Formats: sequence, structure tokens, C-alpha cells
Amino acid sequence: MKSVLFTAVGVLAITATFAQGRTDFPMKPEMTEIWDPEISVVTPGATPQDAPADAIVLFDGKVIASEWTNDAGAEPGWKVADGCVTVVKGSGVIKTKRQFNDFQLHIEWRTPAEVVGESQGRGNSGIFLQGLYELQVLDNYNNRTYRNGQAGSFYKQYPPLVNVCKGPGVWQVYDVIYTAPRFNANGTYFTPPTVTVLQNGVLVQNHVALRGPTEYIGIPEYFEKPHGAGPIILQDHGNPVSYRNIWIREL
Amino acid sequence: MKSVLFTAVGVLAITATFAQGRTDFPMKPEMTEIWDPEISVVTPGATPQDAPADAIVLFDGKVIASEWTNDAGAEPGWKVADGCVTVVKGSGVIKTKRQFNDFQLHIEWRTPAEVVGESQGRGNSGIFLQGLYELQVLDNYNNRTYRNGQAGSFYKQYPPLVNVCKGPGVWQVYDVIYTAPRFNANGTYFTPPTVTVLQNGVLVQNHVALRGPTEYIGIPEYFEKPHGAGPIILQDHGNPVSYRNIWIREL
Amino acid sequence: MKSVLFTAVGVLAITATFAQGRTDFPMKPEMTEIWDPEISVVTPGATPQDAPADAIVLFDGKVIASEWTNDAGAEPGWKVADGCVTVVKGSGVIKTKRQFNDFQLHIEWRTPAEVVGESQGRGNSGIFLQGLYELQVLDNYNNRTYRNGQAGSFYKQYPPLVNVCKGPGVWQVYDVIYTAPRFNANGTYFTPPTVTVLQNGVLVQNHVALRGPTEYIGIPEYFEKPHGAGPIILQDHGNPVSYRNIWIREL
Amino acid sequence: MKSVLFTAVGVLAITATFAQGRTDFPMKPEMTEIWDPEISVVTPGATPQDAPADAIVLFDGKVIASEWTNDAGAEPGWKVADGCVTVVKGSGVIKTKRQFNDFQLHIEWRTPAEVVGESQGRGNSGIFLQGLYELQVLDNYNNRTYRNGQAGSFYKQYPPLVNVCKGPGVWQVYDVIYTAPRFNANGTYFTPPTVTVLQNGVLVQNHVALRGPTEYIGIPEYFEKPHGAGPIILQDHGNPVSYRNIWIREL
Repeated sequence: MKSVLFTAVGVLAITATFAQGRTDFPMKPEMTEIWDPEISVVTPGATPQDAPADAIVLFDGKVIASEWTNDAGAEPGWKVADGCVTVVKGSGVIKTKRQFNDFQLHIEWRTPAEVVGESQGRGNSGIFLQGLYELQVLDNYNNRTYRNGQAGSFYKQYPPLVNVCKGPGVWQVYDVIYTAPRFNANGTYFTPPTVTVLQNGVLVQNHVALRGPTEYIGIPEYFEKPHGAGPIILQDHGNPVSYRNIWIREL
Repeated sequence: MKSVLFTAVGVLAITATFAQGRTDFPMKPEMTEIWDPEISVVTPGATPQDAPADAIVLFDGKVIASEWTNDAGAEPGWKVADGCVTVVKGSGVIKTKRQFNDFQLHIEWRTPAEVVGESQGRGNSGIFLQGLYELQVLDNYNNRTYRNGQAGSFYKQYPPLVNVCKGPGVWQVYDVIYTAPRFNANGTYFTPPTVTVLQNGVLVQNHVALRGPTEYIGIPEYFEKPHGAGPIILQDHGNPVSYRNIWIREL
Repeated sequence: MKSVLFTAVGVLAITATFAQGRTDFPMKPEMTEIWDPEISVVTPGATPQDAPADAIVLFDGKVIASEWTNDAGAEPGWKVADGCVTVVKGSGVIKTKRQFNDFQLHIEWRTPAEVVGESQGRGNSGIFLQGLYELQVLDNYNNRTYRNGQAGSFYKQYPPLVNVCKGPGVWQVYDVIYTAPRFNANGTYFTPPTVTVLQNGVLVQNHVALRGPTEYIGIPEYFEKPHGAGPIILQDHGNPVSYRNIWIREL
Repeated sequence: MKSVLFTAVGVLAITATFAQGRTDFPMKPEMTEIWDPEISVVTPGATPQDAPADAIVLFDGKVIASEWTNDAGAEPGWKVADGCVTVVKGSGVIKTKRQFNDFQLHIEWRTPAEVVGESQGRGNSGIFLQGLYELQVLDNYNNRTYRNGQAGSFYKQYPPLVNVCKGPGVWQVYDVIYTAPRFNANGTYFTPPTVTVLQNGVLVQNHVALRGPTEYIGIPEYFEKPHGAGPIILQDHGNPVSYRNIWIREL
């Protein structure tokens, strides 16, 4: 990068006043090269949506029971067909057998093509990170609801930056970068969970700091019990929402 | 989300001790709904790589001179052909006419199919955010260099989390979420620039805080002059690196 | 510091694995010395409680009207006597004529020697930073109230780490380090206000990030209008609380 | 605090646009009171410089060997007299037997009344937090040195905000609020150490994030080995600097 940088920022550099290092002891370029340890190689997927080599594929479109259970630890009651898994009303959540801390998650979802209900009643499901923090799944295409409860929100904590929903029956994508909380000895957060989310390639959550586990009622800020790794949980809210191409990378 | 959440986190909830709100004054679910202002609607692209409706398309594969100049403000000397723009050695940087603060940037790049040189000499270019902070572009497929100077690094500041490079002649993708610095009155950072980068869909920079403008020599931490919005600058390092499908969303 | 450091951390250094700089290009100690600009000299007070030379003395025990007004901009109705200023019930708040952004504040306060009332009714006043964020003043010596409303709390946002109150009629000290919020264009916080507070020399708030302006009712997190510099406001809550030795340093 | 707040911020409130909660479901004040768990009571010292009841007194002016050793684990070679402990040249560091994580530290120090030497050679000592991070002690009263090496600096990392030194032979005070780093599995910082320092009651370090263990030569940012709790170490730099009234509170 050496040859052109100085031209590029030349105008700024002329007017800038730097805190001066000692000009009588100049550094050499090599002094700021760090060679070890070597960075690990990971083979990327064919497209950014495809799982890279170091990802755990949580659902490849065919088998759900290898990586997921229902809430009682038994085989999920959801329906697998046509390369996706779909909520069966009343069967309850499904959750990963594995537990995760910090991770990058890719997940694709589709609300029903047949539009039924309104506000929170239309195409409602949700993705609980570490089993506690809900990234809302909802059909918000021409369907108004409260801003902190719509698709792309962390339910009742952070509304999405924009409503970038595709329509009913169309596949959508969440890419999630999640950093788990660290705890103080007394059970409060030392650092809260932080999350960045892209929906259909568009930023909807920009490194937000969650307040506490998702609460339907009340203020979610007063968690007094540390938690460790947790599963990904997909919610049965009674609507036949579908999921596919779910992969995760532990960070 | 109301019906199933309590089941989902039931086991945890039983053992958790919350700091108690007054149980004699229970809240209602509606009290934590926020309806206004309504979230703006943005139509996403067909795939996450396609520009959404609110993006500025900086290069669509055809015309470079509408949005870019060379360092002297004249028409770029780079070559546009086959849907991409390619460095012409010695023609210098190209930079956007527009200036940006916080943004989400999508940019695709390709190092030369013909492998020439090694370490920093192979397929070297770079993307300067706000004209000052270099996200390295380099052919690091089977090409070792210093860890803080390889593709996906912020040059001499942050190595990438993994080396997820595709090979020479293959298109690669950067998705960048950039928050510009804010300054104190004395010209030091009040908050430093922070950046998250996905390379080929894989996280390589996780909300890192930059130390200062990229420096080839010395320590990049002592910037004493505030800067405002700045351009995207693409570097001519002498190698025929190509770019395509460049779009940006102001945040 | 050079001669003994290596002995001091010798045991740790032996087992540590550092990311290596190039050993063939060693640095010299002088390369990391920064000489300019020279640090400004400030003459400290005789004790840490005394105003240093660069402080604005907001109240020296004698005159209140030079730096303070009541809420209507007229002369404060509080009583100045015996080197302190005391709330006169019903006269309303007093506030500084000056407006502040980031600052270090020293303020001493005393709740009435005669104990009257309980919970929030005993020795209640408050210090509003930038006129919006209340650091609670209350007699909590053998007087229980809700944890997020007691002395040393940011009212209904952050309880103090410990209850380090002195008794009724005894002077107490707050030392406050306050960083004002910065705002996004849409009026939300880019960075929230952050505050550290020592009460009687003991840490009671450790760099907490405020949620929004203090609210008596509801959730204080949804401020949608940027604010600039603001005054220090002292509250008339109906109890004859006294203040003295108030000084502030702009940061 | 309820009665006067609304007056105080009335002007601002009129022009502010809040994100609206549902006005048809108003909250009550009691809903945001948190009563449990009760905040612990700590008896403060007589002045803010005096140890509160929950502090560990590391040096009370009389005995040094109960809480401190030299670097070899034997009795310190420094001299205790007149209520303080003084560096004996060549005897090496002294360090606490106890190990600390997050803490609040109060320590008083005095450089020699007889002025000898200049720059780093005058009244030099240092306080190593967790045995690794040096808060510089130096006589910088009319004694210029590099800004990132003077009293109140974190050596070669952060200069003090101001030079608030008292003269040779005069006691000075540091109040330090230290949060230990947390580590990633690979040995890098998850969160770096952060520190706030008041010197003689004046803010000199405002929640700075340390780069790594203090280095005399080179860049202190590439620590690759987690460390746990560590001692307070006082440096023998060859000058007869004195210390007294040292107490610490674990956070």
C-alpha cells in the first residue's frame, strides 16, 4: 500500500498537526509488521449465503432431528419438506442441541404466502439467541405493528433501522453477528450482549447492546443470574413460518 | 411472540433471581409497545449482494466518471471493461466525488488471474474509508505476508479474524459497516472509527476501533486534526486489481 | 521507569507468547516518546476537595446570585447562610447561568439534622446534570427506599454500588465525571451520557451509560431531540437540604 | 424527586418529540421502582481521603511487611519512617501479597524535596496495576519530559489531561478506578483494562482503555496470554520517592 497512500491523503496531511514522535529517531516500515501467528485459512462458500468450511450447518434442508429438538428434548414436531422446515402450530419451539457463545449466524426465513391476520398476528415467529434474546420474525410487508416489535427488531428493545421486508411467501435472509454477555460476580452484565443484523443484505441492527432477556411484559434490564452458552431457539407463534439454510460459525 | 416465549426460557427463568419490580403494580404488555415514529420502508435487492432502493450505486459496471475522479479531480485513468473497473498502473488512485460519514458499503474485487510477485507484491490494492483508513485488498491465496497487512486487514492495525480469500482471478466481496469518528475540540478522537467487515460472507473484522489514519511507517494513533466526511478511495498499487458492483448506504 | 520494570513482570513475561514484531528490525526507546504538544499546567487545590486553578467556582459559600438563578431566570429564593445555600420549600429549583457539556463537578451537600419523613420523603433533593439527568440527593442513613431511587443513584436508572451515606446533618461529597451525549441526526443518542460518581470518596457509579433524561414515570430511553450544553440544576423537593463548595471543570 | 422535575425541564420538554409509548396504557410511578436486593451499607471515612470500612488498608504508615514483599517474596528493603515508606535505591520493587482484579485505589506519594536530575531522572517511580500497567510517578513540577511519560500518564500509552503536579517534597494523591481486562480464548483482550485517575482531585485519565502491558520499548498492543488477578507493584527507579495512606477496595 505504500506507493500511493501519501498522494491520496496529501491535502489533509498538510494541514494536520500530529502529536510528534521524535524525528531524530525515525521508525522503519518493517517495525510495524507483525508476522506471527499466521492467520487461519477458511474456505468461503460459493456465494456469501453459502456456508464456509468452518461453519456448523444446523439445517441443510433435509434433516432437522440431527441438530434440533423440541422443548422437551424430543424430536421436533415441525414439518420438513421442499428444502425447508415449517412451524407446526402447537408443536412448540425447536432448539439446537448445541449451545453457543459468540457466533455468526446465517438463517433464511419465509412468512406464509397466504396472508392471515394483522400486526403481531401475521407471519409471527422468532429467533432466540442463546435461548433468551429474540430477533423478531414477522410479516411486516404492508403490515404495521409497534416499531419495537417488527421484523428485524430485538423484541421490545430495539426497532430495526429500516423496514426491509420482502413480501409474504418470499425468502428472506438474516445475517447475525452476536457477542454473548460477560457477567459480574453478582449476576449483572459486565458487558451486555451486542448484536449486528443484516436483513436481506441491509443493516437493521448496528452493534446494539441488549438490555436483558426478551420480555413480553415489563422492562428487560434487570437480569441477576449469569448464563453460559445457549441454544438457538425458533419460535412457534402459531403461524406456518418456514426456515432454511441455517449455518453458524463460533467466534 | 407472546405465547411460546415463556415455555422457551422456562427452565432458566425458574432458577433466575431478578431484581424485583413492585409486584403490587404489575405492568401490561401494551406499556412497552412503541408505535411512533413508523419505521421507513426500504425495498431490498433481489439478493443480499444487490443494491437496495436507498443505496447510492457508485459503480454499476459501465460508467466510472459519473461518481469517481482521479486524485487531481480529473477523469479516472482506470480501465472500464466487462462490467468492472481495473487499476491502470501509474494512473493513481480513484476516489468518489461524494463524501461520506457513517455508511454501509458493498464492494466486489478480484485480484489478477495471472499470479505475479509475492507477499505485498501480489494483487495489492486497497479501499480507503473516508480517504484515510485502509481496508487491505491483496491476493493472499497461498501467499503469506505479515498478518496485519493481508487481505481483510486494516493495514498495520487489525489483522483479519480468518483468511477467507478466494483465488486469483475470482471475484470476492466485502460488506463493510463503518461508523465515522467523532472528535474532541482538541482534535483527538472522542470516539474512534469503528468497522465491521464481512469478506465473502465471513466475519473478518468485528467492530474494531481504528487507532488513527493508516500509516505505512510508525504508530497510527496520534491524529490531532478533526476530519469530516471523506471519499471512498481505491488504491493504485501497481497491480491490475478489478472492482465491480459498488454501492453504499449512508447511515 | 526503565530499570526495574523487567524484573517486576519477569515471571509473567517468560510464559507469555507475544505476537511478534520483526526481531530483525528492533525499535529504540526514544521511538515511542511523544514530546509535543506540552501538557498544560494546572495548579491543584490545597486538598482534593479544594478547587484547582482551572475550575469555575459555582458557589463559594457567600454569594449565590452571581452564578445561579431560579427557574424563571430571577434571583434564587434559597437561603445563603453559614457558608452554605439551603433549599427554601416552594421557591423552586436553582440553576446555573452557565451551560456545560463534559465536566468534572465537585459538590458538597447535607441533609437536615432533624429527621422528618421516610423513604423519598426524608432529605430529598437532586442534582440535574445538563438539567436533565438526576443524581439523587437523599437522606438514606437508616432510611430504606427503592434501590434505584436512593442517594448516589441516577434516579430510576442506576442504583449506587454501595450505600455510603453519612448521617443527617453531616456534610457529604459528590465528585462527578460527566461526559455529555452526542447525537445522531435523528435525535437518538450516538453515545449516551456516561457518568462516574464518588460519594464521600467511595465509588458509587462506575462509568454508567444513562438511558435518557430522568423520568418519574415510565421508561427513560426514547429521547428523540438532541440537546446541547445545559445547566446544573439543584432541586427543591420541599426538604431543607444544603449545598456548599461547588466547583466545576469543563473537560 | 417528583414535584419539581417537570418544571425544571419544562422548556425542553415542550419542543422535544419523544418516541411514544401507548398513551392509552399509562404507567404508574411505582412500576419503575426496584426495591430488591437492598444496597449494602459501607461506612465512609472521615474525609474522602480516609479509608472507608470496606477498604483493605495496604499501608497505614507503620508496617510494610504485613501486606508487601520485595520481588523475591522476602521482606521489602524500603525504609519506613515518619508515617511513610520510601524507596531505597537498588532494593527493587515492592509488591502486595494480595492479588487484585477490579478495584478502587487510593495512594499518596511524594517526590524528594531535594531536586536532582531532570526529565525521567527526577523523582521517578511508578505504580503498576495488576503488576503490568504503569501509572507514572515523577516530579514534573517545572520539569519537562515526554508527554506520554510524565506524572499522571500511563507510561507510553496515555498522557495526563493536565499537569496538576505539586512541587518536590509535597504530598500528592492518586485516586484510581481500575477495571481489569477480560480475555478471549486466544489470549487477546475481550475488553481491555480501563482506568480513571484523579491526581490531587483533578481528572487526569478519563476511562482510558489500555493497549497492553507497559513497554519501555516498542508498541504495547499485542499481548497474547491472559492474566488473572495481579498485585500492586511500586517501582524502585533509583530515586527516594515516598508513599503513604494506601488503601484499596475490590469492586
